[in-house]
Amino acid sequence: MKLVVTGTIGIDTVQTPRAKREGVSGGSAAYFAAAASQLCPVRLVAVVGGDWPAEHHSILKSFSGVCLDGLESRTNSRTFAWGGKYFEDVNRRETLFTEVGVLQEEPPRVPAAYADSELVFLGNTHPSVQLGFIDQFPKRKLVVADTMDLWIRTANPELSALLQRVDGLIVNDSEAGELTGVRNAISAGRKILQMGPKFVVVKKGEHGAILIHPEGSAVIPAFPIEDANVVDPTGAGDSFAGGFMGYLASEGRFDFASLQKAMAYGTVVASFSLEAFGLDRMRTLKFDEITKRLAQFQQMARVG
Amino acid sequence: MKLVVTGTIGIDTVQTPRAKREGVSGGSAAYFAAAASQLCPVRLVAVVGGDWPAEHHSILKSFSGVCLDGLESRTNSRTFAWGGKYFEDVNRRETLFTEVGVLQEEPPRVPAAYADSELVFLGNTHPSVQLGFIDQFPKRKLVVADTMDLWIRTANPELSALLQRVDGLIVNDSEAGELTGVRNAISAGRKILQMGPKFVVVKKGEHGAILIHPEGSAVIPAFPIEDANVVDPTGAGDSFAGGFMGYLASEGRFDFASLQKAMAYGTVVASFSLEAFGLDRMRTLKFDEITKRLAQFQQMARVG
Repeated sequence: MKLVVTGTIGIDTVQTPRAKREGVSGGSAAYFAAAASQLCPVRLVAVVGGDWPAEHHSILKSFSGVCLDGLESRTNSRTFAWGGKYFEDVNRRETLFTEVGVLQEEPPRVPAAYADSELVFLGNTHPSVQLGFIDQFPKRKLVVADTMDLWIRTANPELSALLQRVDGLIVNDSEAGELTGVRNAISAGRKILQMGPKFVVVKKGEHGAILIHPEGSAVIPAFPIEDANVVDPTGAGDSFAGGFMGYLASEGRFDFASLQKAMAYGTVVASFSLEAFGLDRMRTLKFDEITKRLAQFQQMARVG
Repeated sequence: MKLVVTGTIGIDTVQTPRAKREGVSGGSAAYFAAAASQLCPVRLVAVVGGDWPAEHHSILKSFSGVCLDGLESRTNSRTFAWGGKYFEDVNRRETLFTEVGVLQEEPPRVPAAYADSELVFLGNTHPSVQLGFIDQFPKRKLVVADTMDLWIRTANPELSALLQRVDGLIVNDSEAGELTGVRNAISAGRKILQMGPKFVVVKKGEHGAILIHPEGSAVIPAFPIEDANVVDPTGAGDSFAGGFMGYLASEGRFDFASLQKAMAYGTVVASFSLEAFGLDRMRTLKFDEITKRLAQFQQMARVG
């Protein structure tokens, strides 16, 4: 099935306990697309400014499964930029700066050829913008959104309206807690189901993820990675979402069992993303490595 | 195989966000034994004071699989008492008071009839006391210990000596971090393997557990429980250890696959323990409920 992602392209500055990198090719849509393209073709809708490095364009272009027809460039605008610092506890990070740039302008146009997209992932941005995208995909069969604490605090009515119109929500545990006032991931997820979505995936970083669905729940640990192999956690959540949606698009089904399997693909793809800065690991990743690690993970996470 | 546990019997005061209970029957050995006895007979070595309530004796006696021949009572001493308060985040608790009482005296005697015990679980106490127990079980085939931050800080040489003599260690993630100076559970576990044990289980509370073994690693999420069903988290870790060791004793094998299966049993038994104060849920638990929840858990935690 045809998959499209809307979201940000960014120029990241990433500081980890071991290294610092500037001018890293990032953004939620970039991470998502790079990850999803490991499993199926994906269409990208995003906007960059005139300062967007040609090298970053080459990086995105190197993913043969990513369609860039929906990538808009505005010469007189500046690309979204983000700087963050990770602590020894890689589950914790601090945002050093955010320059929204072109993101405060009109959202990117959706190419006419994308109108037949069936799976839509609305990467994190203002919920009104996310809402505006939905109707531009009249053939949509599954709409899944991400959001963040900022919108929970400052755009709650718009977020509520969005939740009424999506099939799935993928959020962090802290965001699920903030959205519902409930800390426990399962309890928070159940509360979110009452707000509209048919399913919720609560991501817990290095502790895995939980799927909450009217038919039941599913839990998955993260793929265990030693400290030394965690090079850059940026975009791991977006890579999870990309692997998750990429699997669903390749399967063409969204029943509970498929969603549960999609969590495994999301987890494995995300585990590779951490191994290098930006999209570097995704560029060299082979499908064979994914299936091999998935088989290894199945052994490691076998219950009884 | 014959299983023995050494550890504490305590009178607990437990405060949760929703309730407060005094005079709760607790202690690491009690929780362990109650949990292990769901899967196989278990021998208890512990000591109480003259103030130990007859009612608590009846509670322990009600577990037909628990042998109390090694439970020593000292009339003129006081039973170990512990008071703790849980926060909304049930992974966090504060100790309100600890009255060591009889624990500061001589350790309990091991009955001669226990000398043929093959699986030995050394519940948390001073590592010198734990060391003293080991040689009293000359038929031991598997010795597993628990420890805590206090001994890591105040009895490090004794703890190092203990680690040289045990086959396995079961610790919390925070303790594994303190013991090794490494936060990442897998990395910390690998470091602990270099200190002596053949395997390490790092418990992460509501986030599950990780097994680190020379043959590989295994990860398991916690059984997902809604907030409303978490009545009392006290003893969940000891119940996990009890289910873990009880399964190994019932199987009579300690290879990697058995250890991995034991993690599933430990997880499921612990998930019941949380559902009531003290040992209340363990008293009514049926083996049938364990196998049913295990099957449910296997579905929920299926990877791909």
